Amino acid sequence: MQNRSDLAFLFNPRSIAIVGVSTDKDSWTMGQNFLKILFDFGFTDNLYPVNPKGGNILGLKIYPSIKDIPGFVDYVICCIPAEFTPQLVNDCLEKGVKAIQLYTAGFSEYGSESGKQLEEEICALAKKGNLRLLGPNCAGIYCPGSTLALGMNFPKEEGPISFLCQSGGNTFHIIRAGAQRGLRFNKAISYGNACDINETDLLEYFTNDPETKLILSYIEGVKDGKRFFKVLKNACSKKPVIILKGGRTDAGNRTTAGHTGAMATSNMIWDKLCYQAGAITVSDIEELVDMAVTFSFLPQPKGKRVGIIGMGGGASVLAGDDCEASGLVVPAFSREYKEKIGGLLINTLGTILPNPLDLSVPAFAKGALYSVFKEVGSYDGVDLLLIHNPLSITPLPASTAERSLRLSFVNEGIKVNNEIAKPIAMVVHGATNLEDWKMMLDFQEKLYKGGIAVYNTISNAARAINRYVDYNKSLARR
Amino acid sequence: MQNRSDLAFLFNPRSIAIVGVSTDKDSWTMGQNFLKILFDFGFTDNLYPVNPKGGNILGLKIYPSIKDIPGFVDYVICCIPAEFTPQLVNDCLEKGVKAIQLYTAGFSEYGSESGKQLEEEICALAKKGNLRLLGPNCAGIYCPGSTLALGMNFPKEEGPISFLCQSGGNTFHIIRAGAQRGLRFNKAISYGNACDINETDLLEYFTNDPETKLILSYIEGVKDGKRFFKVLKNACSKKPVIILKGGRTDAGNRTTAGHTGAMATSNMIWDKLCYQAGAITVSDIEELVDMAVTFSFLPQPKGKRVGIIGMGGGASVLAGDDCEASGLVVPAFSREYKEKIGGLLINTLGTILPNPLDLSVPAFAKGALYSVFKEVGSYDGVDLLLIHNPLSITPLPASTAERSLRLSFVNEGIKVNNEIAKPIAMVVHGATNLEDWKMMLDFQEKLYKGGIAVYNTISNAARAINRYVDYNKSLARR
Repeated sequence: MQNRSDLAFLFNPRSIAIVGVSTDKDSWTMGQNFLKILFDFGFTDNLYPVNPKGGNILGLKIYPSIKDIPGFVDYVICCIPAEFTPQLVNDCLEKGVKAIQLYTAGFSEYGSESGKQLEEEICALAKKGNLRLLGPNCAGIYCPGSTLALGMNFPKEEGPISFLCQSGGNTFHIIRAGAQRGLRFNKAISYGNACDINETDLLEYFTNDPETKLILSYIEGVKDGKRFFKVLKNACSKKPVIILKGGRTDAGNRTTAGHTGAMATSNMIWDKLCYQAGAITVSDIEELVDMAVTFSFLPQPKGKRVGIIGMGGGASVLAGDDCEASGLVVPAFSREYKEKIGGLLINTLGTILPNPLDLSVPAFAKGALYSVFKEVGSYDGVDLLLIHNPLSITPLPASTAERSLRLSFVNEGIKVNNEIAKPIAMVVHGATNLEDWKMMLDFQEKLYKGGIAVYNTISNAARAINRYVDYNKSLARR
Repeated sequence: MQNRSDLAFLFNPRSIAIVGVSTDKDSWTMGQNFLKILFDFGFTDNLYPVNPKGGNILGLKIYPSIKDIPGFVDYVICCIPAEFTPQLVNDCLEKGVKAIQLYTAGFSEYGSESGKQLEEEICALAKKGNLRLLGPNCAGIYCPGSTLALGMNFPKEEGPISFLCQSGGNTFHIIRAGAQRGLRFNKAISYGNACDINETDLLEYFTNDPETKLILSYIEGVKDGKRFFKVLKNACSKKPVIILKGGRTDAGNRTTAGHTGAMATSNMIWDKLCYQAGAITVSDIEELVDMAVTFSFLPQPKGKRVGIIGMGGGASVLAGDDCEASGLVVPAFSREYKEKIGGLLINTLGTILPNPLDLSVPAFAKGALYSVFKEVGSYDGVDLLLIHNPLSITPLPASTAERSLRLSFVNEGIKVNNEIAKPIAMVVHGATNLEDWKMMLDFQEKLYKGGIAVYNTISNAARAINRYVDYNKSLARR
């Protein structure tokens, strides 16, 4: 048998069959969804829907069985009920299929003895040949380089991030939340119950994959703790590994059992082992995305001293509070330095010159924003510049009253970011209506395309940046 | 002189003059904004723009001076530069104006000796008559019952909440963030530097105001600590008081000085005194709104045991983790109880039956959602029901694939909420695109109109509800 973690074949199938594609337009089925998603994403050749009833869908012929498909089939997506899966595995062995992704649920996670036995049965069957199983109870693979997708509206561009995720829903959520902030994936895989291909195999594969520069993971349980932590330690010595553990509490653990059949783990031991291995553990999806954005876009700050520039007095007060509460240092500016900044503005009325700096309206004209960003961004007294753009703090909606001013925060930030070596991070926050969110999405896109790390709240930005500085320091000590 | 905190006259002016309304359409001025906002909100009679140049705006005659306005003027909004304010105060005294709201900045917050002196000068002038000053450096008053507003798109309905806020920007932000989740205000006031009317006067007024049932506040500094804590203690004995302190750290404190001239306060002493007084201190705007939503919509749970129902396996695992990490208790359901719930569903495949419960697709048909909400909501083993609706966890966008299912979470939740005494809270979370946010806003509106507390994340919901239970327990002990 091949090496457990030699999984390259998974990510570049030449042909895909989807088993369990109904032509019934009124009944929602995942078989139809997977077909439509792959088709829309560009996997249009060698895509075979399968259903005993036959017929046509999306202009494609539906084959009654895997065995009826002409030519080879590398990868099968299984959406039929669990009781029919042993027959499918046998058919796939006969056909020479390399891997089956079982979307199908109703196995070990179901909590019944029969579900567990069925999972063992199909695993044992597959092992007779060279057939690998992904799942059961999983959403499969996203690999833009091979036009593989598992969800609608996923980015088509490839990136340097690979992501292993035990939950299908969290895979969709994290890829989408990351996409709007510029995260681009090389490979993402939802692996479910992990009866064959498991978290450790995937971690090992991504560790050795030269296209993967950053590893994200959502893990509910590990199959073999000793091997996992050995592989994790090796992975962390080669690239950053960010881990969100599902089941950090009794309630979470109880649910992982029903979700993916994962065994309970002690959170204390888990955290300690991850820390020893050098992994970055996070506590929610937002923090996972924040850390990934930070690793992807923020140059390493030399320390924790942050210069904060934004709009709004109250927003600036809270920005200072949030940064310090999260562990960053917000140094006071000297009288001389404040005067220097004041000299760059037309008018300092309504402007607050300590750090945080509140640049209110009169200060904006005549390129003042550019000059101040550049000045503070180049200042020896800070290690990074955090610029924030709060959307709900004006009497008129931000989208009408000050859109151009707000846009200049984004544009001047990008311009200065290209001219200075010091890291710049940006926070677009406080959206409270649809126009705000529209503006936020627009700004986020401009910012990540301009190479700037963008966050949703000051607290979250500060939390991620603080941990990033700590991580880089710990690397230097290794 | 009248009682310092007898401020009823502020909230019901018969006529308003806005001083400093330019007719120049190309120059953005706050005078124009205030005029437009009041006019749009319905304050159309006895509204007088003032500018020495005269002219017309919005069909209204612009008067050269306050003194030229025929009839009385109760309330003046001042948007002219600081150096002209002593003359305006004198004119207002002559005219018999009751209060001036100074939007104008450039006083004590500016850090100059002359700014401080000017603030003292206008204060002393006003005190000669019966003229009260609001601000300087403030955004003024929102009081829907009197058609007073300070920002565009504020709700026109009155509510039971009054809000004192030292920051103008935070006033806009909090009212808007609260509005979309059902918070309705009786009175909100942005009071800036507080040279005359200050935080303690407002707190005392709201304490004695029978229309105010809940007090929110954002405070950067207090003028007289002893009086403030005496008034706060009395306020907390009569209604809940939620306080967000700006300047909890060195960086924040440094900025409050430039923002509203507030003096630094020790955060440790502040927290201790607030705790002793019985106030609810929060650490950010999101938590302020969450607590206000909880007090406004959630019946008191008898304890911390929460039954969690939502969609998605991974989302349910994280929901359990987030609830327990925030202090709530997520009790395991007995085998018998799980069987009882299972009996309400057509099919338990893909459904997770421990607590948290993941109700996946097959379970939804034939009113199952209603039955399960009602069953768990009536169950003795939990004190409240938390229902969550994660928007990004499906292969197709939530707005296309499962909109009707998601909507049924909302509708069945509202239906059951009307039928059971036990509290129901709802979380609509994980929006990652514009269609998601549109759906979220729609669901939020349906939910608050249906009387249900709605939150943006499970963590935030759990944090607020946990504190609410603690608060109610502490009240019972008093």
